[in-house]
Amino acid sequence: MTQHKTITAAILVIGDEILSGRTKDQNIGYIAEYMTRIGVELREVRVVPDVEEEIVAALNALRARFTYVFTTGGIGPTHDDITAQCVAKAFGVSIDVDERAVEALLTRMKREDLNEMRLRMCRIPAGASLIDNPVSAAPGFRLGNVFVMAGVPRIMHAMLDNVAPTLETGVKIISETVEAGLPEGAYAGGLKEIAERYSELSIGSYPSFGTQGVKNQIVLRGKDLALLAQGRAEVEALIARLEAERAAK
Amino acid sequence: MTQHKTITAAILVIGDEILSGRTKDQNIGYIAEYMTRIGVELREVRVVPDVEEEIVAALNALRARFTYVFTTGGIGPTHDDITAQCVAKAFGVSIDVDERAVEALLTRMKREDLNEMRLRMCRIPAGASLIDNPVSAAPGFRLGNVFVMAGVPRIMHAMLDNVAPTLETGVKIISETVEAGLPEGAYAGGLKEIAERYSELSIGSYPSFGTQGVKNQIVLRGKDLALLAQGRAEVEALIARLEAERAAK
Repeated sequence: MTQHKTITAAILVIGDEILSGRTKDQNIGYIAEYMTRIGVELREVRVVPDVEEEIVAALNALRARFTYVFTTGGIGPTHDDITAQCVAKAFGVSIDVDERAVEALLTRMKREDLNEMRLRMCRIPAGASLIDNPVSAAPGFRLGNVFVMAGVPRIMHAMLDNVAPTLETGVKIISETVEAGLPEGAYAGGLKEIAERYSELSIGSYPSFGTQGVKNQIVLRGKDLALLAQGRAEVEALIARLEAERAAK
Repeated sequence: MTQHKTITAAILVIGDEILSGRTKDQNIGYIAEYMTRIGVELREVRVVPDVEEEIVAALNALRARFTYVFTTGGIGPTHDDITAQCVAKAFGVSIDVDERAVEALLTRMKREDLNEMRLRMCRIPAGASLIDNPVSAAPGFRLGNVFVMAGVPRIMHAMLDNVAPTLETGVKIISETVEAGLPEGAYAGGLKEIAERYSELSIGSYPSFGTQGVKNQIVLRGKDLALLAQGRAEVEALIARLEAERAAK
């Protein structure tokens, strides 16, 4: 692995319930934080409905652009669970009941309970490897650079833990936060000037309008710890100077 | 407005901080629920980084497909706030300091404090109308079918309240929820059969794996109240029958 190798990812959230607002997504933030922690850069997220052509189009757009794609949702036994067949279609491969998935389900239920709809959960695209589901047995799968996971957060977390050690990772992006008790407009000019000089760092300003007045955060992100420390020191000096000026007024 | 007019929308969330996991998005779920309530169908969500070509490409893809596009984030005074210029670029129009936006800011600050970076918040694409920001004065704007709003939830909520009465809306989608104390695989076959007969309804099953055992929800969504009530009664009968069968075992 070279020092500057960049591994990228996208998330595809599949489900009408997120778009209707009925279910509030908890997976995007979880996966985002996880990826940052292990050194994978999340570059895009899409949420699409349970509609085959939408899922296939989004999958093909994302898997062509990023190192990895993580999907959540749509792998249960009901008629609205169509993710597996969409992945097969996107890759142009066949899909059929997979004996490994049947075995996994049989650890939790009797063979006579493995009805037609439950067998849907065992339909895995040709060439995919399974992702173990310790919560409810029905597996996710990996095909190419696409990881198909459950939408239920508890199951998704377990699947991601199983998947993470298999991922290639890049240099971790570290972030440093400087608190600023000044309005953004007061430091935006100085911050822009620092951001221009530290073009290898990504520097963002995140305002917060609370009842306690202005409590903004300036976040510096980068891969080079020394550069990050230097940039942070400059931002701290900027804020200290502006705060002193304001106090002297 | 005809009975079956469908008004659609997409959300474009702009911001590195969401993709890094540093900030957990709270806007998608809020807008989704709001749209459902007023009769607008949210069809897609994308999250992209603070990168001009990504924002422009996503905007152009979404505004061509949906009645409305709502963006959140990237309209503050700092160098990483580039949404306004990206919208101008996507529409191929010029962008300049807008006197209406300057006036709005001057209600909150003295003219001498309106520095170069704060004036960035007054740069509005040609032809746009402003969206009032009662929280921190810096306005959002509407250009064509795109509504540009702040990323800070409190400000976005106020902007959406200002925007909502101007939107064309369709027939509201109503949802009905049936609780099912059975595993999905037990009712998936019967539910599929109902879903096929009620093709005008969207029927989904949402599992939950808690410490209290299975507590699934079957959600029926549609625009025709009578049909919805009929579908709901069929689902309830299915679940009651299966629960009785299970109890008799």
